Amino acid sequence: MFRITRCVKRMLLLPLVLVLLGGCQVLPESRTQSDAAAANIDNLMGTGDLGLVVERATGSLLVVNTSSHSVIRRIEGLGDLSHASVVYSRDARYGFVFGRDGGLTKVDLLTQSIVGRVIQSGNSIGGAISQDGRYVAVSNYDPGGVKVFDAKTLELAADIPATYTRENGETAQSKTVGLVDAPGNRFVFSLFDAGQIWILDMPDGTSRSEPELTRFDAGKAPYDSMITPDGRYYIAGLFGEDGLSMLDLWNTDAGVTEILPGYGKGEQKLPVYKMPHLEGWTVADGRAFVPAVGHHQVLVADMADWSLVDKIPVQGQPVFVMASPDNRRIWVSFAHPKNDVIQVIDSQTREIVRTLEPGKAVLHMEFTPRGEEVWVSSRDSNRVTVYNSYTLEPVAQLDAQSPSGIFFTNRAHVLGL
Amino acid sequence: MFRITRCVKRMLLLPLVLVLLGGCQVLPESRTQSDAAAANIDNLMGTGDLGLVVERATGSLLVVNTSSHSVIRRIEGLGDLSHASVVYSRDARYGFVFGRDGGLTKVDLLTQSIVGRVIQSGNSIGGAISQDGRYVAVSNYDPGGVKVFDAKTLELAADIPATYTRENGETAQSKTVGLVDAPGNRFVFSLFDAGQIWILDMPDGTSRSEPELTRFDAGKAPYDSMITPDGRYYIAGLFGEDGLSMLDLWNTDAGVTEILPGYGKGEQKLPVYKMPHLEGWTVADGRAFVPAVGHHQVLVADMADWSLVDKIPVQGQPVFVMASPDNRRIWVSFAHPKNDVIQVIDSQTREIVRTLEPGKAVLHMEFTPRGEEVWVSSRDSNRVTVYNSYTLEPVAQLDAQSPSGIFFTNRAHVLGL
Ligand code: DHE
Ligand code: DHE
Repeated sequence: MFRITRCVKRMLLLPLVLVLLGGCQVLPESRTQSDAAAANIDNLMGTGDLGLVVERATGSLLVVNTSSHSVIRRIEGLGDLSHASVVYSRDARYGFVFGRDGGLTKVDLLTQSIVGRVIQSGNSIGGAISQDGRYVAVSNYDPGGVKVFDAKTLELAADIPATYTRENGETAQSKTVGLVDAPGNRFVFSLFDAGQIWILDMPDGTSRSEPELTRFDAGKAPYDSMITPDGRYYIAGLFGEDGLSMLDLWNTDAGVTEILPGYGKGEQKLPVYKMPHLEGWTVADGRAFVPAVGHHQVLVADMADWSLVDKIPVQGQPVFVMASPDNRRIWVSFAHPKNDVIQVIDSQTREIVRTLEPGKAVLHMEFTPRGEEVWVSSRDSNRVTVYNSYTLEPVAQLDAQSPSGIFFTNRAHVLGL
Repeated sequence: MFRITRCVKRMLLLPLVLVLLGGCQVLPESRTQSDAAAANIDNLMGTGDLGLVVERATGSLLVVNTSSHSVIRRIEGLGDLSHASVVYSRDARYGFVFGRDGGLTKVDLLTQSIVGRVIQSGNSIGGAISQDGRYVAVSNYDPGGVKVFDAKTLELAADIPATYTRENGETAQSKTVGLVDAPGNRFVFSLFDAGQIWILDMPDGTSRSEPELTRFDAGKAPYDSMITPDGRYYIAGLFGEDGLSMLDLWNTDAGVTEILPGYGKGEQKLPVYKMPHLEGWTVADGRAFVPAVGHHQVLVADMADWSLVDKIPVQGQPVFVMASPDNRRIWVSFAHPKNDVIQVIDSQTREIVRTLEPGKAVLHMEFTPRGEEVWVSSRDSNRVTVYNSYTLEPVAQLDAQSPSGIFFTNRAHVLGL
């Protein structure tokens, strides 16, 4: 029988182990592009088990490996990452980082270096990459609108100011939120101030050669959104009223409809840091598990008619409510000040199976692609904890400086993330 | 603004373009491991947009790139690939190729070379990789059973002969089929001769340290199977009787139940080459689209109670019935002799949208991860055709020698493939 001697990989990992033992301060510095080119030879690796961890206070990223539970290198110089998110190129080599300061930075996971950076607005909130991987779109607060860039060059490909007419007749530009990619090389996003949902059809290299825009009236003050995994339903949460706005992308003629009419009912306006995030919205067995607004509850809705079927009491205001990829358990993170724990719910019995204490100020969690493990960031404990999704025991811990969002490269292959 | 000069990538692609113009005969020869090491420097690439195409007559594989629609290199020396399939390591760097002759070959997509090979049985039919990526399992006809290998070293990790007792009291070994990976580091497979379904729990590094086996009685002569994307339902097709065998892995105490009782009803035994494959079984809007057995039909079943809700007439006996990742269309390939076409069905109207003619003897199709394109192999036309999934027009064509299965690296991240 054959034996595979993976010496290249081993040599690569050895210094990392030492680094980890020594704490993250001694991580190799981020590389320049020419360092990176010279270092090609020791970088032969697959990109399927890599990811980026946002270090929100220092404007840096950790390139991590989910097979070896290790940090490969820190990349610095990304500006204000106080609320940053990441999407990936279709070869899973490049990450596009959306910074809070309007910075859009392209990083190379193989050389762990910055390969492009533009400051494209004054304040941005997130972004997406098109189905074909050719376009990266950014959702901006200021000036309100969406800008689309060529994923290879970061050249501007389309500029879509979110212009609308106020009740008093004035023209204004709305903050945009909840930007996602959808099938057919589309982007969909919501206008917070205008109460609208827009679809942006990008050229797909065959039928369309110019971007096209379609506008829909939606509910008041959409603050975030999600799209179902098949890319069919776009659902926006609303600050301004009860219920949610839903657009069926298979049947846009029907316009935006209201679902879960009781959602958020009877709430006073929440402080912004208590806003539930919709990314994690999750479906198990025809049921959607969603964070309640202003209640210490996870709501269970029937996807067939969007009626409320259950409320699960939890220990705080949920921020992210995420199903494990096998849909058996629902993992919940919480808003300040009760944000030092994660609660894990059984999707069948709807009971809390375990309350985990990963550290102080838990901000995000990300499952490994097939769901055997989940990575959790604890900002104020300066660490990322890796749990086995079945035993719920920690299996590894990594040093990180004020970590927030965690993003694995398999997102490259998933619609609407 | 910044410009990214991707000269490394461009230099890499140039020779390929020339190669393609000249036909696949002049492709660079497959590399030895030392060639491969020396060539590291020009191989810095992400592995997210790569794949392997099986060349069934020549025992070779093409390493392909789905972004540039190009062949990177041919790998030779894989033995009998007349019915081969592939799974990927969790870093999306290595492919594990299951040959018909019992060969299990590990190939490196970055160096385009063979890094390990074992002949592990006399005749095998497919395989799977465990959720954590540590184990590769192979389903064998002869000797009947499953062998499990360490994914790093290809050392034997478990040997599970499919032993059963015949009606006359004799002990025999059954052919095994329909091997899939399931959540919790399990493999599930069916015993063709024994009419059983077995679950093999592999060690998961925490709770279990020894493999564990659980046996279930199933219907007669299971010939292939599928598992739902969440890893919950394992469904086996039956040669020996009408209907299908289903095991709910969330509730194994309930044992195997029969679903779609009319499935295959009234059929005489089919010639083996007309066997529908269950891999592509597909769900859109709560409906499963499944190939009829011995009828020129695609059946539509309600997933809630597995009743038959519709039959869609098609031009031949379906082999693969696959939904596009956005669930809007169902793509159908056919059995000999009507296998020179693909039919595309609208999942909502259930009408045939288009009949495509990619070439002679269409054997397999594979969607790009986000579904914008689909690759189709035509064995007797020696080519792979790439279609835009929306316009249904061909966008590229690649030379290949008797191509059959096409497997993209995003399978690394998907349960049950
Ligand atoms: C609209 C919106 C998105 C979707 C972006 C897109 O289009 O892709 C988003 C995504 C995100 C994502 C990306 C989710 C994903 O899985 O893609 C993360 C990790 C995240 C972590 C946080 N968010 Fe977020 N977030 C807001 C809004 C949003 N957050 C807020 O309004 C709020 C309350 C205040 C603010 O900073 O603007 C807020 C606070 C937080 C946090 O406090 C979190 C928990 C930690 C942090 O920022 O350091 N938000
Ligand atoms: C049980 C089984 C599997 C699942 C394997 C696993 O456990 O992963 C399978 C998978 C497959 C897969 C992998 C599917 C996937 O998407 O993972 C492919 C491409 C495939 C292409 C063919 N199969 Fe297949 N196939 C059979 C059985 C099976 N085929 C047959 O019994 C049959 C009729 C005759 C035989 O050769 O054994 C048969 C003929 C064919 C073909 O003629 C096809 C179309 C072309 C070829 O082999 O060159 N079969």
